[in-house]
Amino acid sequence: MIVVMKKNACKEEILQVSAQLQEAGFHCHVVEGTEKTIIGAVGDKSRLLNMPLEALPCVEKVIPILAPYKLASREFKPEETLIKVGDITIGGPSLHIIAGPCAVESEEQILLTAQLVREAGATLLRGGAFKPRTSPYSFQGLGEKGLRLLALAREKTALPIVTEAIDIASIDLVAYYADIIQIGARNMQNYALLKKAAKTGKPIMLKRGLSATIEEWILAAEYIITAGNPQVIFCERGIRTFETYTRNTLDLSAVPIIKHLTHLPIIVDPSHGTGNWRWISPMAQAAVAAGADGLMIEVHPSPADALSDGAQSLNPANFRRLMENLSNIAPYIGKKLTPPSPYLPADEPDNLDFTAQNCCWNSTAKTTEKEA
Amino acid sequence: MIVVMKKNACKEEILQVSAQLQEAGFHCHVVEGTEKTIIGAVGDKSRLLNMPLEALPCVEKVIPILAPYKLASREFKPEETLIKVGDITIGGPSLHIIAGPCAVESEEQILLTAQLVREAGATLLRGGAFKPRTSPYSFQGLGEKGLRLLALAREKTALPIVTEAIDIASIDLVAYYADIIQIGARNMQNYALLKKAAKTGKPIMLKRGLSATIEEWILAAEYIITAGNPQVIFCERGIRTFETYTRNTLDLSAVPIIKHLTHLPIIVDPSHGTGNWRWISPMAQAAVAAGADGLMIEVHPSPADALSDGAQSLNPANFRRLMENLSNIAPYIGKKLTPPSPYLPADEPDNLDFTAQNCCWNSTAKTTEKEA
Amino acid sequence: MIVVMKKNACKEEILQVSAQLQEAGFHCHVVEGTEKTIIGAVGDKSRLLNMPLEALPCVEKVIPILAPYKLASREFKPEETLIKVGDITIGGPSLHIIAGPCAVESEEQILLTAQLVREAGATLLRGGAFKPRTSPYSFQGLGEKGLRLLALAREKTALPIVTEAIDIASIDLVAYYADIIQIGARNMQNYALLKKAAKTGKPIMLKRGLSATIEEWILAAEYIITAGNPQVIFCERGIRTFETYTRNTLDLSAVPIIKHLTHLPIIVDPSHGTGNWRWISPMAQAAVAAGADGLMIEVHPSPADALSDGAQSLNPANFRRLMENLSNIAPYIGKKLTPPSPYLPADEPDNLDFTAQNCCWNSTAKTTEKEA
Amino acid sequence: MIVVMKKNACKEEILQVSAQLQEAGFHCHVVEGTEKTIIGAVGDKSRLLNMPLEALPCVEKVIPILAPYKLASREFKPEETLIKVGDITIGGPSLHIIAGPCAVESEEQILLTAQLVREAGATLLRGGAFKPRTSPYSFQGLGEKGLRLLALAREKTALPIVTEAIDIASIDLVAYYADIIQIGARNMQNYALLKKAAKTGKPIMLKRGLSATIEEWILAAEYIITAGNPQVIFCERGIRTFETYTRNTLDLSAVPIIKHLTHLPIIVDPSHGTGNWRWISPMAQAAVAAGADGLMIEVHPSPADALSDGAQSLNPANFRRLMENLSNIAPYIGKKLTPPSPYLPADEPDNLDFTAQNCCWNSTAKTTEKEA
Repeated sequence: MIVVMKKNACKEEILQVSAQLQEAGFHCHVVEGTEKTIIGAVGDKSRLLNMPLEALPCVEKVIPILAPYKLASREFKPEETLIKVGDITIGGPSLHIIAGPCAVESEEQILLTAQLVREAGATLLRGGAFKPRTSPYSFQGLGEKGLRLLALAREKTALPIVTEAIDIASIDLVAYYADIIQIGARNMQNYALLKKAAKTGKPIMLKRGLSATIEEWILAAEYIITAGNPQVIFCERGIRTFETYTRNTLDLSAVPIIKHLTHLPIIVDPSHGTGNWRWISPMAQAAVAAGADGLMIEVHPSPADALSDGAQSLNPANFRRLMENLSNIAPYIGKKLTPPSPYLPADEPDNLDFTAQNCCWNSTAKTTEKEA
Repeated sequence: MIVVMKKNACKEEILQVSAQLQEAGFHCHVVEGTEKTIIGAVGDKSRLLNMPLEALPCVEKVIPILAPYKLASREFKPEETLIKVGDITIGGPSLHIIAGPCAVESEEQILLTAQLVREAGATLLRGGAFKPRTSPYSFQGLGEKGLRLLALAREKTALPIVTEAIDIASIDLVAYYADIIQIGARNMQNYALLKKAAKTGKPIMLKRGLSATIEEWILAAEYIITAGNPQVIFCERGIRTFETYTRNTLDLSAVPIIKHLTHLPIIVDPSHGTGNWRWISPMAQAAVAAGADGLMIEVHPSPADALSDGAQSLNPANFRRLMENLSNIAPYIGKKLTPPSPYLPADEPDNLDFTAQNCCWNSTAKTTEKEA
Repeated sequence: MIVVMKKNACKEEILQVSAQLQEAGFHCHVVEGTEKTIIGAVGDKSRLLNMPLEALPCVEKVIPILAPYKLASREFKPEETLIKVGDITIGGPSLHIIAGPCAVESEEQILLTAQLVREAGATLLRGGAFKPRTSPYSFQGLGEKGLRLLALAREKTALPIVTEAIDIASIDLVAYYADIIQIGARNMQNYALLKKAAKTGKPIMLKRGLSATIEEWILAAEYIITAGNPQVIFCERGIRTFETYTRNTLDLSAVPIIKHLTHLPIIVDPSHGTGNWRWISPMAQAAVAAGADGLMIEVHPSPADALSDGAQSLNPANFRRLMENLSNIAPYIGKKLTPPSPYLPADEPDNLDFTAQNCCWNSTAKTTEKEA
Repeated sequence: MIVVMKKNACKEEILQVSAQLQEAGFHCHVVEGTEKTIIGAVGDKSRLLNMPLEALPCVEKVIPILAPYKLASREFKPEETLIKVGDITIGGPSLHIIAGPCAVESEEQILLTAQLVREAGATLLRGGAFKPRTSPYSFQGLGEKGLRLLALAREKTALPIVTEAIDIASIDLVAYYADIIQIGARNMQNYALLKKAAKTGKPIMLKRGLSATIEEWILAAEYIITAGNPQVIFCERGIRTFETYTRNTLDLSAVPIIKHLTHLPIIVDPSHGTGNWRWISPMAQAAVAAGADGLMIEVHPSPADALSDGAQSLNPANFRRLMENLSNIAPYIGKKLTPPSPYLPADEPDNLDFTAQNCCWNSTAKTTEKEA
């Protein structure tokens, strides 16, 4: 910790501040500069300390030197943390694509989507059963029924499930069904939820808060790890900026930075990160090229009919096209996509063309191919 | 709702979109412009609807016309909502100052502070018993003991208590002691907590999220009101911007805007809004001049010894000076400060100079007077 | 300057960095912490130095201790700088209101406005002759004709003129007519323009860039001062944030901070700072209460007919009402408004009701009084 | 243009607003909703119009439907614009890497760097001769001498030159030497400079302003095109956000959006976009995967000795490694890197190891290879 004294601080004040620091267990090194004096405070407890020395008028500012987190830090644990979910390992050489609808809407919708994304190469299924919505009047999800439908889809496709827990009341229920528990952006600093989620023992996918700095995000992971659960997967999903053309600004630099500062895996969600299906594929490719361990992508069999976030969902044709591109790029970043397995072909739905009756949708599919 | 079609949208696509809208219960008005066609959709359910028409490639964008909130809206309820807390009414002509330490630390600290702020003219006491902290290693508050100490301070000074609830597990406990329940910035979109807080029947002070737009903030209030509790007090406490000199950027324009869009009172927290005691007084004055119904200010008898947020707490001398200034300005904004009552003089602590033994603090007090 | 070494930096690397610093003229103090080593570098040239030590993998980060500006700093010159413009002094106890239209549109418009604002108590006249517009298709101002009209208005009302210079080609022309040269937000880091403006010898009103930190803003002032002109007036006009309800977020904390860090005066522009006439008056009051030395306010005799920025202009009735409020508040902040002088009553236009023919406007005026 | 009336707007006011719009040449469509009335205004001049109807209290807001730019728009010109610079075409299937030092420092430095980057596959050389610096005390570039050194490097390597023009006084000089003129982020809305740059007839690389929306950025391009020069290359270089870990937040979603909205090419600058050499390579790869037409990367033979921006420059080893990665990824995005030509092998400097004497640098080079 460095304490920068005000220019006009007198010797007595410098001694006083040093004395306070020493009392708190620090060794002090006073460095008199040509204009200002600084005090370097060294000690064991520096990580825990929070002395409000800036309350003193003789102090200009206090600059911490050590990162405020520890267990999540790569300095603390240099080797990468690998997170196992069934047969899958997140954080190693495999690139994992988590795909599925924003919200589970019906058995037909989730089964069809699960089948579609699995065949295209996704290795995990996403779908919201409890939806945190900005407006109390928006669709809030199917609740437990949604979880049961996800479990059914898992049974049919063998894809592990990622789904969000939005409060303590329902988290045990979510943990019962989910393979990975998602903590949403709005709850990144809901510490009670973080601790409770940690206690479930399931891997936690921790989305970045809308205006969370990288340091605050890592500190939120630190809450989970200190509660006894080191299986944290970061998920970059865009931050809030002045730009209004996209719903959020996807901060892909978070990918190499998180991998530099921590030992934990990071995936990217280009659906929320852009808010518009048109930009999902290029940003998904970019995320992989930046070194992400995986992607979370919203896919809906008929986006224009979705009950939630249809505008930022890929349709099946565009998702398949994206998966092809990713499988080509990944090897050059040292990652590989697991090829879609031949599992369960018998269960293929008779009619993939859920939306055949919707002529606008059909013409859409053609246009989007060109656009993507 | 206005649907803007892509420039090259064909007649068939326009008909298709209109048909979807009509099926959803809208009347459609198609306006063909020189370059683009727009569809104006009119209908009862517009507020509830969330049709993801932007998922269609033929649609450029969808522009909502009506605000997504209703019960909080001044269009819905033109007259101002007054919130009664004991003898006090928030939202009317009185300006209310809520003052006290960031965190309750000890009996001596909270009683002394309560007495000090009451004598200076504060009409409510603040103090955190449960503290949501960015780092798991920071002081997390005294918990129930802190609540009991607040209640003791209320008994001694007759000041109603404002304190934060940070999770569902402890909210009933908080509601038992508190006169006003504070929902912190990080929990503004913790909808489970909002609904549970509403059920306590206590007035709710709803802090603005660090990156919440005004619309999202009002929607969070809408959650509380739809859960049956219309006693919401907004609290502007700064938003996150690129500026690093202050901890947050206090957005005082939220004051007239909230009063224009809603019928609810709004107060301002210049302590968190700036993060530095030096800027609290000018920003407190500014908030009152902008029309705020009250202020929430951190005051500590010895900021440099505070366990939490000392750097953004006023010392007693600076707080008294600020209260004098406010009492002069308020009448010209149509507000008045309640003069400190002569209540309980016998209980005055013998020694207000809690920090007499701390010479740095004493010299501090003198300097700050000049600086403020 | 503090150099923080990486945790795993070896002794050789620490010596190497120290040697580079010593070669550059610094004294080095190496402080070995429990986890990391830091090097405190002290020396005369610290202000000028820009060693890219962060390019070395053994260096984690470099933290500057001294502010990068000097001449603008209050540490360098503790007493306040007063700026004289004719009989007026900006920066002292008088509060100065600069009012007028966004753009000069016609002789009638500028003379009428000048007369109106003068009678309401404004002490300077603003008006754009050269307009920097985001779109090449927007009205770009009357150019030199606009300047001549401003000079005519000054002749009639004795109000000094503030007008913007947007490029080097026209700055001598602007300087010939203007009493204060305004540098707009977009040009805050147009260093060639800053230096050229400084050379004119006129006082410079330096608007804050849309995303300029306070430090960058002061550095822009430093460019002007180092070019030989210490007459700089800062003008806070809002910064760009995620909030879309207002055009910008007016950062009033800049007022006390600029006065703390520098010796120069600061005024506030609530018109650009909010982008909507509804919020101008409360934010103007707030700016004065925060300690501003003046305000710059857009006033138009008929805002709905303005060629530029009508939506953020006050009409005459609302401006007069605001001036009354300000004259009441100012004394309690240690400022006073100069009362409107009885100068030139004979020149009053026959018909102040420029917009009599516009019935919507008239009903507007009545409504706005209620609204404001 | 859509005019949304206030909820309580009376029939007279609606007629009044319609009349004003009709007088301005619009056809009006009044749509009465269940709560609010909107007026759709259709007409030829919509693009040019700027009626401040929001100044009327009966108007809630005005929503433009058409984009404010035209010539830059893909709706106006669907086919892509290709920009020729010597033998090179920017905007087509070739991916172009512009590399070189932040600032030209000496003949040795620029010749060595030019040779290095050419051999690694760069097809253009960058280097600043006039440097816009936030501080007046920072190195401001070599000026014309720097331009002559760039020309010398071009002669030796056949690489076209990209260099920045910072003011009107020097732009003809810059245009004389440069193959592409760079307009920096701070000057994105320096309209006088944009128009003057356009007049040189050289291709213009237009960097995005630090807080410029995509729409404002395109409007800046529109200034250049309306001045007669359609050869605009956008350059995304990061925007300003609350995140402090990176110097800026590189907004890669700008790549597909610019290509969707306009017909012009876009390149990405990951050096300024991150501010730290550690993140340049992953973000460069991401930019290519997002569809960028090229990259601009700072490369310095010895970053720790650079006079400007050393911390965000790649060293030669890391640059070569990046180029290899890019050449692998590009084909899967439909782009190809031109292989380094065998041109001028005789001119290779004897000693590429400019920094051999700097032992810290040497150990650095090894570490960075691992880190990258």
